[in-house]
Amino acid sequence: MSSSDIFIGETIGTAVLILLGGGVCAAVTLKASKARNAGWLAIAFGWGFAVMTAVYVSGPVSGAHLNPAVTLALAISNGGWADVPVYVAGQLLGAMIGAALVWVAYYGQFRAHLTDREIVGGPGAQATAAQAVEAREKGAGPVLGIFSTGPEIRNAVQNLATEIVGTAVLILAVLTQGLNDQGNGLGVLGGLITALVVVSIGLSLGGPTGYAINPARDLGPRIVHALLPLPNKGGSDWSYAWVPVVGPLIGGAVAAGLHNVAFA
Amino acid sequence: MSSSDIFIGETIGTAVLILLGGGVCAAVTLKASKARNAGWLAIAFGWGFAVMTAVYVSGPVSGAHLNPAVTLALAISNGGWADVPVYVAGQLLGAMIGAALVWVAYYGQFRAHLTDREIVGGPGAQATAAQAVEAREKGAGPVLGIFSTGPEIRNAVQNLATEIVGTAVLILAVLTQGLNDQGNGLGVLGGLITALVVVSIGLSLGGPTGYAINPARDLGPRIVHALLPLPNKGGSDWSYAWVPVVGPLIGGAVAAGLHNVAFA
Amino acid sequence: MSSSDIFIGETIGTAVLILLGGGVCAAVTLKASKARNAGWLAIAFGWGFAVMTAVYVSGPVSGAHLNPAVTLALAISNGGWADVPVYVAGQLLGAMIGAALVWVAYYGQFRAHLTDREIVGGPGAQATAAQAVEAREKGAGPVLGIFSTGPEIRNAVQNLATEIVGTAVLILAVLTQGLNDQGNGLGVLGGLITALVVVSIGLSLGGPTGYAINPARDLGPRIVHALLPLPNKGGSDWSYAWVPVVGPLIGGAVAAGLHNVAFA
Amino acid sequence: MSSSDIFIGETIGTAVLILLGGGVCAAVTLKASKARNAGWLAIAFGWGFAVMTAVYVSGPVSGAHLNPAVTLALAISNGGWADVPVYVAGQLLGAMIGAALVWVAYYGQFRAHLTDREIVGGPGAQATAAQAVEAREKGAGPVLGIFSTGPEIRNAVQNLATEIVGTAVLILAVLTQGLNDQGNGLGVLGGLITALVVVSIGLSLGGPTGYAINPARDLGPRIVHALLPLPNKGGSDWSYAWVPVVGPLIGGAVAAGLHNVAFA
Repeated sequence: MSSSDIFIGETIGTAVLILLGGGVCAAVTLKASKARNAGWLAIAFGWGFAVMTAVYVSGPVSGAHLNPAVTLALAISNGGWADVPVYVAGQLLGAMIGAALVWVAYYGQFRAHLTDREIVGGPGAQATAAQAVEAREKGAGPVLGIFSTGPEIRNAVQNLATEIVGTAVLILAVLTQGLNDQGNGLGVLGGLITALVVVSIGLSLGGPTGYAINPARDLGPRIVHALLPLPNKGGSDWSYAWVPVVGPLIGGAVAAGLHNVAFA
Repeated sequence: MSSSDIFIGETIGTAVLILLGGGVCAAVTLKASKARNAGWLAIAFGWGFAVMTAVYVSGPVSGAHLNPAVTLALAISNGGWADVPVYVAGQLLGAMIGAALVWVAYYGQFRAHLTDREIVGGPGAQATAAQAVEAREKGAGPVLGIFSTGPEIRNAVQNLATEIVGTAVLILAVLTQGLNDQGNGLGVLGGLITALVVVSIGLSLGGPTGYAINPARDLGPRIVHALLPLPNKGGSDWSYAWVPVVGPLIGGAVAAGLHNVAFA
Repeated sequence: MSSSDIFIGETIGTAVLILLGGGVCAAVTLKASKARNAGWLAIAFGWGFAVMTAVYVSGPVSGAHLNPAVTLALAISNGGWADVPVYVAGQLLGAMIGAALVWVAYYGQFRAHLTDREIVGGPGAQATAAQAVEAREKGAGPVLGIFSTGPEIRNAVQNLATEIVGTAVLILAVLTQGLNDQGNGLGVLGGLITALVVVSIGLSLGGPTGYAINPARDLGPRIVHALLPLPNKGGSDWSYAWVPVVGPLIGGAVAAGLHNVAFA
Repeated sequence: MSSSDIFIGETIGTAVLILLGGGVCAAVTLKASKARNAGWLAIAFGWGFAVMTAVYVSGPVSGAHLNPAVTLALAISNGGWADVPVYVAGQLLGAMIGAALVWVAYYGQFRAHLTDREIVGGPGAQATAAQAVEAREKGAGPVLGIFSTGPEIRNAVQNLATEIVGTAVLILAVLTQGLNDQGNGLGVLGGLITALVVVSIGLSLGGPTGYAINPARDLGPRIVHALLPLPNKGGSDWSYAWVPVVGPLIGGAVAAGLHNVAFA
């Protein structure tokens, strides 16, 4: 696999992943969306099938890592460290493109949501300082949640632990089954099984932190949230941003180590 | 594949697609349906499995395009332009047959819904002019929504963009994986994977416009809505009808181009 | 395949089908069930996976028809009329066993539901004549609905049409894909695909009549409902019983004819 | 397969199963979980995909029994009694590890839930004796329900019958299809099909008792519930603990016997 194949495949694949994954969060969250309040099951299936679609799109080209934790774990298990930077660069760029496409697809919904008269005042009104604060408190959380994850209870140790555990399950499933075939493309069922593992992690371990389980999935869209000209969008919660980067990397490494020891 | 095989397969396949896809909209929308208010997840799975069923029914006969955007993208990628008119004719005819069969299966439900006493007055009552207007406003939207798509926020540029993005994801998945084998019928898993890609697009990108992502899926049933003798059905919203035709065709062409450049 | 294999396979398979299919209706309907009010999506997936489980249990033994409409359609397509009575006998007996097992698994829930103090009076109280009537009206419908189907709007022509259309989709999927291999057992994916076709029919065409799409599925449990010593169970609605027998048989024959003409 | 492979595979596999299965119960039950009140469909899919993930993780190592009832049924059918104690020991240890990991992942949620001011008083307050009793009655049930099963209506005969019936369906599916290949690892689809059978049993037969259908799944976490330092956690309901151990073992033996007689 050439570096350019890796970079192109990971960029397009991760863009599809975040477009569909961020998309389901927008669909369920924003005003004037037909899917509003569709519930957690919709989010879990939405992210799972986002992974599946992205795997089938990019699998034959780059092996469909789509996640720096997967790339790290496969490097620990199989070597190939030289390709790691190319994979991660494609993943981060793709995640940013995907998040921007969510904004394109839901452009009017973002506007309707963030300038809602319940929060900001009449349509087109200039928010007062106090209203802007209220908008940030009531509105910005959910809008940031379309881009990046955040904990229900802010506790770095637990939040990190939850991300480590969730990512370890994902990586164990990927490594043990050889679902991810770096050289020859995925087996035809691999994408579907991986998708349903992600649905499982979402349903079962997503409650506390929103299951980033992928550093690129969280960091890329957070950067886009910081850059996009969204009115009343609030802060990008950079103080939490390290948790969904560090946790999944630790989880990936732990799972790779466990796999090498127990299943060698 | 002979022209008559193509025409017959696409007609029957698209009829099954729209019968099941329009059916889930009727099931979730209409009064006196056991599935009423089953929610967006039911709609997304309903349309996805409608695609799956239609693919397995028509795959061995016509290759199961079922969608002019798929036909266009495959012609751009693989040639075979001479068959395009036959595919599209079958798709449009099939979509109209499917929409008419939804009306047959939900005949009493349409009557109960559209002549509802809450809107129109007592059972069997002749609606006054004002009541008919109210019925159109309150009732016709959902009833048209059983046949065709419509935007939550009417903005041609955004609506077009959303349909382009959603269709591009579908076509990228179809082309990249060779899920759609024009010559030899579908691989046995292709229909299931394609179905789940459609579930994904519905969950993630369906919020703003209702994800036509298929010109025949929208235009055929809209024609049937215009022709059917439904009381108080309201207009067929022809001013929007070009968006779910043009958007998916652009999305298909964009995806085919991206595929040819990036994944050649 | 010997007659005894056919009979045993169809009996056990259809018992599993109705145990799981009737089970999900009991789970969603009855008081003191953890799944109460889980909604139409639960019912549609519940019946679909019931079909899947039954197909995998009986497929290698009897070919997993599990449905007289499937047996009829396969006889029209492939011959083998001599085995039809054995298939149907096993299917009907299995459906009755399955319905009785639902009663066993939900024994206490049926008692709690049908002697509910809201309807019948205090616990253990003897219902007055008026209360028994009220219990029948309020309670018996849902309880019969655990066993057999019934229409939301009672109109024999429409009800028959809905059952014909739904069954034709099922049979078309079975025949076109060769999902049902009478001689050699099912291909490994056949049961899953058939299950998801049934989920699709449930979501999309189940609204008006509850989608019997299988004469044994409706008639066997209706007989058991008539025989079981359930307090306040109400009538078994025999006046409707012919619709979910005749409709699916017509639908199966129509689909077999269409298949032979269009896809030969 | 060596004893150490069996022990390691079953321990890790069952830990994954209970982490994800207990996890979905925590996600749906606990305060400050994003998935709170996601409903029974989420629980049924959550447990099903937990089984799938665990099967793919441990299948190639130990054959993925993950359940003493499966181990018993396979020994009855195929022999290999000498390995039974190793399988069961790994399953029980794994179930305990998995339950402890649920507590780690939901640490803050357990604290928020069990010290909730609605039940116990102000935050950080010491519960009075009466409040502790109330907390036990209102709160402990759901919290024990994250670890172990319990009946809606306490009736040993019915509860046992429900567990026997549900487990028999599971084992019949496992045995009939050879989904579980003790010697050579699972066929690639086996884990997915088994998962959907478990979803089916959950949707259809889970209403009365919460479908343990696996002695290790219930007993291991119940021991962990008894040991964990959770405030106001209430009792571990040991008087019921024998039912979800004995019922599944009987169900497994019955299904193995039925399989040997009917399908030999």
